[in-house]
Amino acid sequence: MNRRMILYTLGRIMLLEAALMLLPLAVTLIYREGQAVQFAVTAAAAAAFGLLLCFFSKPRTRVIYAKDGFLLVALAWLLLSLFGAAPFVMTGEIPSFVDAFFETVSGFTTTGASILSDPAALSHGSLFWRSFTHWIGGMGILVMCMAIIPSLSARSIHIMRAEMPGPIVGKLVPRARDTAKILYLIYIVMTLVQIAMLCFGGMSLFESALYSFGTAGTGGFAPYASSCADFSPYIQYTITVFMLLFGVNFNLYYLMLIRRFKSVAKSEELWVYFGVAALSTVVVAINIFPKYGGADAVRHSAFQVASIMSTTGFSTADFNMWPGLSKAVLLLLMFVGACAGSTAGGIKVSRTVLLFKMMRRQLRRLIHPRSVSTVRLEGKTVSEETQSGVANYLTLYAIVMIAVFFILSFEPFDIETNLSAAAACFNNVGPGLGLVGPAANYAGYSAFSKIVLSVAMLLGRLEIYPVLFLFAPSVWRGK
Amino acid sequence: MNRRMILYTLGRIMLLEAALMLLPLAVTLIYREGQAVQFAVTAAAAAAFGLLLCFFSKPRTRVIYAKDGFLLVALAWLLLSLFGAAPFVMTGEIPSFVDAFFETVSGFTTTGASILSDPAALSHGSLFWRSFTHWIGGMGILVMCMAIIPSLSARSIHIMRAEMPGPIVGKLVPRARDTAKILYLIYIVMTLVQIAMLCFGGMSLFESALYSFGTAGTGGFAPYASSCADFSPYIQYTITVFMLLFGVNFNLYYLMLIRRFKSVAKSEELWVYFGVAALSTVVVAINIFPKYGGADAVRHSAFQVASIMSTTGFSTADFNMWPGLSKAVLLLLMFVGACAGSTAGGIKVSRTVLLFKMMRRQLRRLIHPRSVSTVRLEGKTVSEETQSGVANYLTLYAIVMIAVFFILSFEPFDIETNLSAAAACFNNVGPGLGLVGPAANYAGYSAFSKIVLSVAMLLGRLEIYPVLFLFAPSVWRGK
Repeated sequence: MNRRMILYTLGRIMLLEAALMLLPLAVTLIYREGQAVQFAVTAAAAAAFGLLLCFFSKPRTRVIYAKDGFLLVALAWLLLSLFGAAPFVMTGEIPSFVDAFFETVSGFTTTGASILSDPAALSHGSLFWRSFTHWIGGMGILVMCMAIIPSLSARSIHIMRAEMPGPIVGKLVPRARDTAKILYLIYIVMTLVQIAMLCFGGMSLFESALYSFGTAGTGGFAPYASSCADFSPYIQYTITVFMLLFGVNFNLYYLMLIRRFKSVAKSEELWVYFGVAALSTVVVAINIFPKYGGADAVRHSAFQVASIMSTTGFSTADFNMWPGLSKAVLLLLMFVGACAGSTAGGIKVSRTVLLFKMMRRQLRRLIHPRSVSTVRLEGKTVSEETQSGVANYLTLYAIVMIAVFFILSFEPFDIETNLSAAAACFNNVGPGLGLVGPAANYAGYSAFSKIVLSVAMLLGRLEIYPVLFLFAPSVWRGK
Repeated sequence: MNRRMILYTLGRIMLLEAALMLLPLAVTLIYREGQAVQFAVTAAAAAAFGLLLCFFSKPRTRVIYAKDGFLLVALAWLLLSLFGAAPFVMTGEIPSFVDAFFETVSGFTTTGASILSDPAALSHGSLFWRSFTHWIGGMGILVMCMAIIPSLSARSIHIMRAEMPGPIVGKLVPRARDTAKILYLIYIVMTLVQIAMLCFGGMSLFESALYSFGTAGTGGFAPYASSCADFSPYIQYTITVFMLLFGVNFNLYYLMLIRRFKSVAKSEELWVYFGVAALSTVVVAINIFPKYGGADAVRHSAFQVASIMSTTGFSTADFNMWPGLSKAVLLLLMFVGACAGSTAGGIKVSRTVLLFKMMRRQLRRLIHPRSVSTVRLEGKTVSEETQSGVANYLTLYAIVMIAVFFILSFEPFDIETNLSAAAACFNNVGPGLGLVGPAANYAGYSAFSKIVLSVAMLLGRLEIYPVLFLFAPSVWRGK
């Protein structure tokens, strides 16, 4: 283990967080809000802490091992959230530290589960910071670090692997750093386009930015308790489309940039993703038709399906009041999630597809024991190693999900509430069903459960392993 | 595929069912009930059908392949249930055929999910047949066939593998037929002991037999809607102990018979099984203490934990009204189930243990990529093949569970009801939560859902593969 390099990089990340906090600070200054002080203090503290770490842990070598990558990512996200929560507590807008930590983790992990019953009561600066955490967390703070800080080692692909979601993380271009830059450029441009389109629909620039941050990171924090219910169909459809777009594997956008459209059109994951979204929209629309009638049923259905499948969590309607079939569809979509290599959470479409193909092969083998068959995804044979990796991941996934649900059962809530809370946090969706439905929030949970749910969000966003590594003694001994 | 051998064996099984139906026929005669006619007619029809099959499908060779075993078992259970449902329909006691089929499948698969609101209204003959199906299904109809019919081939281990639950099915003695005999002997003796002990507690012989059949097969049909709530603590504790005992791997009883006590004491699965049961009893007892007070809390907790974990489904209290934690514990126990090689359903303790060990190894490998480690169970190294078999089984298990839940979502019930109905039927437990809790029944589901739940029960009892084979065209083409 390269302890010094880990601490050094953590220091860099703290400096980056301090820099990023200058944005909400600017917002408080623009709106002449007193909260400027707290943001300035936090930014200064993060910067000081970062400088200390960098100063005292000058690494002798810049090599980063796979294990270091995991550990670094887990620690970075924890530190980031601890500092990120500070302004909320200091301004008194979220007085309880546990609540503020929950809200910040929910922001960075792009979950969007909130403990606030009325987010509109926050200052502009805090609202901006709350939504901006989504944007930062979406593409990953370490990926951002790699994109803008030249000093990270050539082996930093290990960091990307640990932070980027999906079963297979590849480099678009030979150098991981250039890949990170390309990804962030696409991310920034798409966010700017969405902001422009929302402004065009009559939204203020400030609101457009908040909603675009929430969409880009597939987060779901909204500045209003009603989320997106009060907007025009144009705005709602724009957000629907962008939620779906941010759930697409970003590699495909790169392929489009270099004009390899054929490769994009052949993407299996993409077709399944849009196919499942379309089918779910139709099923839900038919199911809620009696409640809303034609156009509204389609709009609400499309919005909610896109929101849940991309694990964003915005809402235009209280789907907790929808019939059981629609609720079941949405609950299942929470688990499927969107594409690997996107900003979304969940199991990911590619893993789900791989799973079904592995099952099909297994059944075929049982019937024809001597047949030789391989599993292919995106036109390539999937190695046995990747397959067993996916199978193991899903098992671990199920175990974590069950464990979180079980711990939540100590709360005096019904099974639907606890199960959907566990699913919505672990899959980074945000709103669940029952008492944590889109019209409600997570304030009713005890401090203990809020911490458990925060850990679940981190486990979901970082795809389990990095967080588990934090609890493995042998990792710390550096063996 | 040996088509003739399959049909021939099916004929034998029909003859066996006809013979077994003489028992309820005798009961109707003893109690001078008019239902004797319908049982006699069904038995005659089954016998005639069986004779026809045997006569026209004399096999040229008696070899049975693995694939044939699967197919045979699935077809046998289907035929068995179709004929088994006939008396209920003909006597008019369960007029709808779908309802009667559901009840019979629930009986044979030892699920115990009922559509009857008042079973006490049935005739003695029907009550006896209903509970007797549990006893027949518990150890397996084909295993019974093997034990008493000499003509089955030397390769009949394939049949046992297809019908006996658990990841690894071994032979106790060199010949599969002798193994089947030994298992049935233990089964019969234990059932008789329970009948005697219940009679000793003041139960009538008839009732003792019904409750012992339900316990032995880990089924759960009771002749009263109140299940076991109205009995003395002695009776309730006796049933608790026997439910746990019938959830133990029967191989261990054989080892005790041949005085290999050390091997029994070293059984990992046994210790985990009793450990989980004890721990769950303590947790639930503490949780329901405010409701019942000391002794009653322990008794109700122990009974319900034993009932759910052994997937029996008897109840002494309406656990649907218990606090969320207890309900969550019971819901999780539904999935764990009892030991492999017992009459119980669920995932089985050994698979669960194996799963956790595989996960532990996977995590260790991630931290120390170069380390070599094996997974050991019951003191033996588990082959990679068995491991991937278990992993695949569990994935398929999750897919079936989700599919059943999803189909049930078309019903206008809440998620807790539908989810627990799917879990309770697929795991062969019986009562679920919500509207299918121990104080309610499955009558509210549509005919379509009842058929889906019947298939789920068969999938659970036969551990998925045989039933899936029925739907694979290439199996039927005999390729």
